[in-house]
Amino acid sequence: MKSHPYPGLRTFAEEIFLKIGCPPQDANLAADVLLHADLRGIDSHGLARLGGYVRLWEAKRVNSKPEIKRVHESPSTAVVDGDQGLGLVVGPHAMRMAMEKARTCGTGWVAVRNSNHFGIAGHHAMMALEEDMIGMAMTNASPLVAPTFSVERLLGTNPICVAIPAGEQPPFVADFATTTAANGKLEILQRKNKEAPLGWIQKKNGEPSTNAHELKEGGALIPLGSDREHGSHKGFCLGAWVDIFSAVLSGANYGPWVPPFVSFLSPPADPVGTGIGHFFGAMRVDAFRPAEEFKKHMDNWINRFRSAKTVPGEPAVVIPGDPEREAHAERMKAGIPIHDAVEEELKKLADKFALAF
Amino acid sequence: MKSHPYPGLRTFAEEIFLKIGCPPQDANLAADVLLHADLRGIDSHGLARLGGYVRLWEAKRVNSKPEIKRVHESPSTAVVDGDQGLGLVVGPHAMRMAMEKARTCGTGWVAVRNSNHFGIAGHHAMMALEEDMIGMAMTNASPLVAPTFSVERLLGTNPICVAIPAGEQPPFVADFATTTAANGKLEILQRKNKEAPLGWIQKKNGEPSTNAHELKEGGALIPLGSDREHGSHKGFCLGAWVDIFSAVLSGANYGPWVPPFVSFLSPPADPVGTGIGHFFGAMRVDAFRPAEEFKKHMDNWINRFRSAKTVPGEPAVVIPGDPEREAHAERMKAGIPIHDAVEEELKKLADKFALAF
Repeated sequence: MKSHPYPGLRTFAEEIFLKIGCPPQDANLAADVLLHADLRGIDSHGLARLGGYVRLWEAKRVNSKPEIKRVHESPSTAVVDGDQGLGLVVGPHAMRMAMEKARTCGTGWVAVRNSNHFGIAGHHAMMALEEDMIGMAMTNASPLVAPTFSVERLLGTNPICVAIPAGEQPPFVADFATTTAANGKLEILQRKNKEAPLGWIQKKNGEPSTNAHELKEGGALIPLGSDREHGSHKGFCLGAWVDIFSAVLSGANYGPWVPPFVSFLSPPADPVGTGIGHFFGAMRVDAFRPAEEFKKHMDNWINRFRSAKTVPGEPAVVIPGDPEREAHAERMKAGIPIHDAVEEELKKLADKFALAF
Repeated sequence: MKSHPYPGLRTFAEEIFLKIGCPPQDANLAADVLLHADLRGIDSHGLARLGGYVRLWEAKRVNSKPEIKRVHESPSTAVVDGDQGLGLVVGPHAMRMAMEKARTCGTGWVAVRNSNHFGIAGHHAMMALEEDMIGMAMTNASPLVAPTFSVERLLGTNPICVAIPAGEQPPFVADFATTTAANGKLEILQRKNKEAPLGWIQKKNGEPSTNAHELKEGGALIPLGSDREHGSHKGFCLGAWVDIFSAVLSGANYGPWVPPFVSFLSPPADPVGTGIGHFFGAMRVDAFRPAEEFKKHMDNWINRFRSAKTVPGEPAVVIPGDPEREAHAERMKAGIPIHDAVEEELKKLADKFALAF
């Protein structure tokens, strides 16, 4: 595993997006959003996926020159058709629209259809922080998750991010898959040929499994909670909520009809909507109370939780967003570690487009 | 355990609320909301709590004649001061305000401070369904939950409800505590003197416990996920999100400052806000797409998930809201089973106020 400085990696991603036909502004934005995942330490959603986006473009499932359209609206809401664009571009566009509505209305809520994978939810939700707004972002995704009691994969890992500004403290940023473990966590175990803890995955017949490669055998990820006795039906509720807000509100595909991210699997032949769906929200803090007052109390909230008495051996309660912010600072300084397999794929991409890596 | 017909129980609760000084309209509403829990099978939040509300009133911590005020607003938002009223009354008031804003703005979002326990979140969120709106309700609560890595109880079981209308299918109603198990589940085990599964509670020192009485020894409930390896940090994110939306946005008490429901424990001497906090949302479905179209797809979503292939021995995937709706129908017909201990307490309440039970 070798580390590379951020600027070079970012430029490389931008060049690839230009090569597949993105207008310069979109290529620039897509590279920013993609690399934001690598900076925050969410390696599964950054450069590791660049090749995947290119293959979707080759399969004509990503439109690099989308005409993103507002197709329905009310004072505080809108539905956006992403015209099959990269979610990395469509997402920020829709989030800006939500913020624009929040400026006049207090809050703004935008559902998106006909989009593709949008990188990390955190990027979009965090856009709101600069304007003292709370940001929310969620998306549905390729069906890999079996609802409680089911052996069928009907939901994606359907992440939610809630980003909340603070004053002197850094913001609260909770960004998590609604499964016990994100697919990226499983990929790490696969690369290391390690077993997964019980409660992350199940076999094709629904039995518990520790085989990190179980998805290839028809197995499934499990909703947050691990089993019925430990609340997996609540994780199912969360994943379902994300699916319905992202896709049933917008007119995207939902549940098992969500098109797979990998280009070697075809989208279902009987779509119930267009593309995948996202849902974004922005709430102006001062639509509820003066921003300074809110931020003072957020500082107090964060300080109180951060200084909580811990179980022996644990240094502190982790405030959501802390590990990712620390990774960001560290990787801006020391570079971004790229796994050998990813490095190999980036080199192939460079060759394909006659670029240097 | 004896069953009683709904109408008599409802009237009894209404009479009690009248006796503590609620205006007739409020007593009527509070009884409706309280009994809605018993009807839906969420016994911990219904008549079992009636005595608790009365004791809070006796301790002058519930104001039976509140002047509920809108203290801040924007086109799509408001903050409500509940004037220390019953959450059973303040909650529906605030939810109606959210729906009123949604009518003109597409969505409405109301944060509430200075309130008390509001019964089941589901009651409030489901109010939106009648107008083809999606309803959301959340509340913070007495601190009983230790964040991941902490031995301190800093959060309540902080439930979330999302209610989504469908067409021919009944609505999707996900209503769940953001802990592995709700406190009511633990109370059932306590009454039966049974052990709790590992992953529900921890000892005072943070070690895992199966003692259903552990909270009395200084132990804590655990966020959804059970342990770090199975995602309890995500459950912590959820509980924190509810706490911040309910109380930091509104100016209520948050985290360990939330006043306890039980009257024998005093509220913290250094409050950071007033009372407990709630957060309500209403989104008009047709602010996103025509309601008929949305409901047709919700029917399709529900049918697909309900008919999913199950693990051997399980009859079907449970759609959120199904068990509670079935309980409602059954209990309207056969009566509401009241646990002996609750029956005993209701009789004492009847004696206290010279009523018949």
